[in-house]
Amino acid sequence: MRVITNELKEHVDKKVSLHGWLHKKRKLGGLNFLLIRDRGGVAQVLVKSEQEMEKLRGMQIGSILKVEGLCEADERAPNGAEIHNPTLEVMVAVEDEPPIEIDKPLSHKPDNLDTLFEYRAIGLRNTLEQTVFKIRADVLQLIREWCRSNGFTEIQTPKLIAGDAEGGATVFKLDYFGKEATLAQSPQLYKQMMVGVFERVFEIGSAYRAEPSATSRHMSELMMLDMEWGFVKDHDDVFKLTEKFVGDVLRKLYSENADQLKSLRAPELVLTDSFPRFTMQEIHELYQKETGIDVSKEVDLTPAEERWICEYAKKQHGCEAVFATNLPVSKSKFYHMRNDDGTARSGDLLFRGVEIATVPQREHRYDVLVGQMKESGVDPEDPGFKYYLQAFKYGLPPHGGFGFGIDRFVQLILGLENVKEATLFPRDINRLTP
Amino acid sequence: MRVITNELKEHVDKKVSLHGWLHKKRKLGGLNFLLIRDRGGVAQVLVKSEQEMEKLRGMQIGSILKVEGLCEADERAPNGAEIHNPTLEVMVAVEDEPPIEIDKPLSHKPDNLDTLFEYRAIGLRNTLEQTVFKIRADVLQLIREWCRSNGFTEIQTPKLIAGDAEGGATVFKLDYFGKEATLAQSPQLYKQMMVGVFERVFEIGSAYRAEPSATSRHMSELMMLDMEWGFVKDHDDVFKLTEKFVGDVLRKLYSENADQLKSLRAPELVLTDSFPRFTMQEIHELYQKETGIDVSKEVDLTPAEERWICEYAKKQHGCEAVFATNLPVSKSKFYHMRNDDGTARSGDLLFRGVEIATVPQREHRYDVLVGQMKESGVDPEDPGFKYYLQAFKYGLPPHGGFGFGIDRFVQLILGLENVKEATLFPRDINRLTP
Repeated sequence: MRVITNELKEHVDKKVSLHGWLHKKRKLGGLNFLLIRDRGGVAQVLVKSEQEMEKLRGMQIGSILKVEGLCEADERAPNGAEIHNPTLEVMVAVEDEPPIEIDKPLSHKPDNLDTLFEYRAIGLRNTLEQTVFKIRADVLQLIREWCRSNGFTEIQTPKLIAGDAEGGATVFKLDYFGKEATLAQSPQLYKQMMVGVFERVFEIGSAYRAEPSATSRHMSELMMLDMEWGFVKDHDDVFKLTEKFVGDVLRKLYSENADQLKSLRAPELVLTDSFPRFTMQEIHELYQKETGIDVSKEVDLTPAEERWICEYAKKQHGCEAVFATNLPVSKSKFYHMRNDDGTARSGDLLFRGVEIATVPQREHRYDVLVGQMKESGVDPEDPGFKYYLQAFKYGLPPHGGFGFGIDRFVQLILGLENVKEATLFPRDINRLTP
Repeated sequence: MRVITNELKEHVDKKVSLHGWLHKKRKLGGLNFLLIRDRGGVAQVLVKSEQEMEKLRGMQIGSILKVEGLCEADERAPNGAEIHNPTLEVMVAVEDEPPIEIDKPLSHKPDNLDTLFEYRAIGLRNTLEQTVFKIRADVLQLIREWCRSNGFTEIQTPKLIAGDAEGGATVFKLDYFGKEATLAQSPQLYKQMMVGVFERVFEIGSAYRAEPSATSRHMSELMMLDMEWGFVKDHDDVFKLTEKFVGDVLRKLYSENADQLKSLRAPELVLTDSFPRFTMQEIHELYQKETGIDVSKEVDLTPAEERWICEYAKKQHGCEAVFATNLPVSKSKFYHMRNDDGTARSGDLLFRGVEIATVPQREHRYDVLVGQMKESGVDPEDPGFKYYLQAFKYGLPPHGGFGFGIDRFVQLILGLENVKEATLFPRDINRLTP
């Protein structure tokens, strides 16, 4: 019976069979040590017999072996046990040396990203690279569990849509049986419509941006989390559920995945239950006062201000997440609710120096919404909005929500330099393969 | 404090506040009954005061109300309690009658699908329609929980891909910064590559087929579950994990969602732990013997045979899921492993009369795979396959897997006539909105 490496400790002093990849091979003090990798991690194998080692002549890293031997406890070994005096069998022989080194620390430094992605399927065999994506998988599941236990229904909405409802030049177009379709930039309109059905909804799905820039922040295919919920009392109520969600998910991740996060040298989590809130105006003033840099002409926060306010809040309030509130109407969308003072009920959630989500209360009143559409130059008769407005006409409660990129969220959690490092097969202007 | 309808029973004899949609309004024996809908379901409200009722003059179904009144136990009421003598407040007034009736039995009969989708965001407010999608959400989560607890890592692979790796005319093409990209028909190549990394992987993600036909079975945008795992002993081993997965998920769904399934009149589950296996040849022979219809010229199973063998297995073996094994090589792909007798190690999983998945063992030997590619007229030097073959060259174990459409799976579970009824916003040749 096959044993998985992370179950070895339960089989001490018994004969076991490991099936896995040859991950490392080295000779130390006349002894042969192998590392065998399987879905549970890696295990160390000590081979004394030269006859057995002879079977591995010419076998490169990646060869697939059956290893049968005695399992002995050893606290220094990965998984707390190792295999002694095995018989070896080569299941799949690999005779070419892998094009990139596998058993070494995280290799994804920005200067070798091209090499990394050229050999992505091989490079990911690095156990630290794998940990990035195991954490990503855990983040996804923690998000879903939180949403489900807080009354959110999971929805899946189409990514092939008619027209270009939300506007912007950065949209991919394709021929759809003779009509023009676009790839959805977000499920914004659908999730609001679904508030009228399920009241609280979430979706984790693809989003597309024809971003013509190749930076460390941009990809053309993203994985988005979108949440939207009804019966909010006011904008503050939207912030409250948002901070509870973000805080609960991060705290649980940091507590359940402490060892993995440590192995990747992820930053410590510094978070209060309630995130500090500053109006955009307050941030401009604070920043200007502290740094002397004039930002009075800026509509938006500058990247430097985003970094600064997160550092400031971390020092002053013990929290590296911040809400910037009362964004100017000029920066808001037609579906954001507006205050009387020229600001919108929209805010930015900043985390570790970067804006990760816009968190508005929506305009739910049909007549006001139609008015704001017209003001923004959006035609309410456009087929792309016809179905959206239906939902409002027949009753939507006050609601709010947000969306953020899973890729960027994982990047920030782990402190990776480039969002693409948190994506298995990233897509940007230069990259459509592998 | 707002109470959700499904929590009412905990608040009997207390004053509570419900916030929700006016779902139904009727007068019975001089008394006014309202149904209020929120994310927990519906609750009945008994209004005696004509002064309060006056507030609802002109208010149509969909209007959003605050209802404050005494919660009284009543076993006949939905959620086991109702509200008496409330004060009413209209939060959002709806003055137009909804374009389709909401509070009635499931409305999605094939003859009115066009109406159904024209007013989808409103029609889904029907509580039975909602139940379809709550079950779909539960199916998704049960799948993920099963996968995670069986050592599968969740992956998310790109849907924008170069070229047209798997072939077929039914692929959507788009301009990608001056290059041609296609929308992925399946994550087949990626999930096999990821077996070399995580050993066991699954993905729930979109897949695209430019299907030019508008039938009850075809959509152009699907939600696919894909699973793939390594270190299988043989093809039977692939079937075994597949039947355990399908059986575990269905049994848990039927036990945890019994009331919901009953409300939708879903068929009873008839399943054995091990699914009956028949070679394709055996099915042809059995069918011909029992029905007298000559199928000796058929390569594939006919739709009539698919229905028949599932009925047969249900009667004879107490199982409505069946594996058809030893498919002919002519029906298999280049990446399916082949037997010596001209058949492939490929099988179909049939459930309730329909093929839901192909369940093959893959060819994992690099040289054999390259040979089979050439035989099938596929160029191993094609950039679309370069990265795929990398994974094999540097060591992939024997592996197998399958993929199936979530939409169709939910359709079959619920006994719906059209796959689109299990999809919030289906896409086909005629439908790109809403």
